[in-house]
Amino acid sequence: MSVHTGELRFSTGGDGDVVDLTARIEEVLRSSGIQQGTVSVFVPGATAAVTAMEFEPGGVHDLREALERLVPSEGDYEHNRLNHDSNSHAHIRAAILGPSETVPVTGGRLATGTWQQIVLVDFDDRPRDRTVTVQVLG
Amino acid sequence: MSVHTGELRFSTGGDGDVVDLTARIEEVLRSSGIQQGTVSVFVPGATAAVTAMEFEPGGVHDLREALERLVPSEGDYEHNRLNHDSNSHAHIRAAILGPSETVPVTGGRLATGTWQQIVLVDFDDRPRDRTVTVQVLG
Amino acid sequence: MSVHTGELRFSTGGDGDVVDLTARIEEVLRSSGIQQGTVSVFVPGATAAVTAMEFEPGGVHDLREALERLVPSEGDYEHNRLNHDSNSHAHIRAAILGPSETVPVTGGRLATGTWQQIVLVDFDDRPRDRTVTVQVLG
Repeated sequence: MSVHTGELRFSTGGDGDVVDLTARIEEVLRSSGIQQGTVSVFVPGATAAVTAMEFEPGGVHDLREALERLVPSEGDYEHNRLNHDSNSHAHIRAAILGPSETVPVTGGRLATGTWQQIVLVDFDDRPRDRTVTVQVLG
Repeated sequence: MSVHTGELRFSTGGDGDVVDLTARIEEVLRSSGIQQGTVSVFVPGATAAVTAMEFEPGGVHDLREALERLVPSEGDYEHNRLNHDSNSHAHIRAAILGPSETVPVTGGRLATGTWQQIVLVDFDDRPRDRTVTVQVLG
Repeated sequence: MSVHTGELRFSTGGDGDVVDLTARIEEVLRSSGIQQGTVSVFVPGATAAVTAMEFEPGGVHDLREALERLVPSEGDYEHNRLNHDSNSHAHIRAAILGPSETVPVTGGRLATGTWQQIVLVDFDDRPRDRTVTVQVLG
């Protein structure tokens, strides 16, 4: 068994921007040479989350709208008041979705579905540079 | 260290159907012979999720009702409009819950609680055949 | 590759109490001697969840308030009716957030962000003794 680490660096638009990480995770997996194991994908930072979805414009739109409805950008938030900040909604949404997913690897490939991508959702209220850590074990 | 892969195949009723996977995950774990490590459980497909809960009729009912209230089946969804589809709510719910959980293994057993099961929730709006991948590392 | 298990034992106030686990997870990681791999954090029990957040009073307040608004403590819950219980909201919230997160380890350190902590959220409606399992692979 071995461990192989990849770091994906990219910029986001913030404000619920969804970034498809799948091709770059597969690149890390290929370069690891690992055939059977797991890939753990993790975003450092408390205002973004990692999850899976069908990455297409309609689904991206609906997810953003649902989260805006459930946890509105504007609200009476203590985090914003105490820290003279404006992104409390981003913190709440990120904590609900969570920063990590772990995907099995079989036959050198991610065990994802055909219409399922691993994505980062950046909830922060401004564009951000992000680094996602991809850890392959196998 | 070694890797052991199991695939659980089953049918669901869709529409928020909750399937208890615990016994079948434990079977994969036993057949792996691994005593200490992790089990990662992952559902391919963008309209179902893996999580943990006490699998009993009341909790299943309440979880389904809460998610129907928070992310209604009927709504003005872009995914449905663009793709002539009807399961946008399923995509949104699945992205919020996420496709994977990782459970520690100690002494050859899942470190789950007594009244805690690992479940699949199928949010799609029709019955589905599902395959869940169980990856044991240890 | 090796596996190292830690068990974190502590008491919570219940009712949405958030406990920062980061320092104790780092302690388990240090004592494992593992430099590269993953740490999986898992809570046994169906009324608490593991996630990540910036652990500061404002964010903790806002997360608790958002979850109380989205999944109220008081409600017409089948779990409560069938089991003569009062914590159905805790079960629902825990299933939505999930019991596990997996954090990469690089250079002997968690790949978390500077203002990002790994936390337990105890949704149960009374103080609880909790044990969280920390599994280090690498």
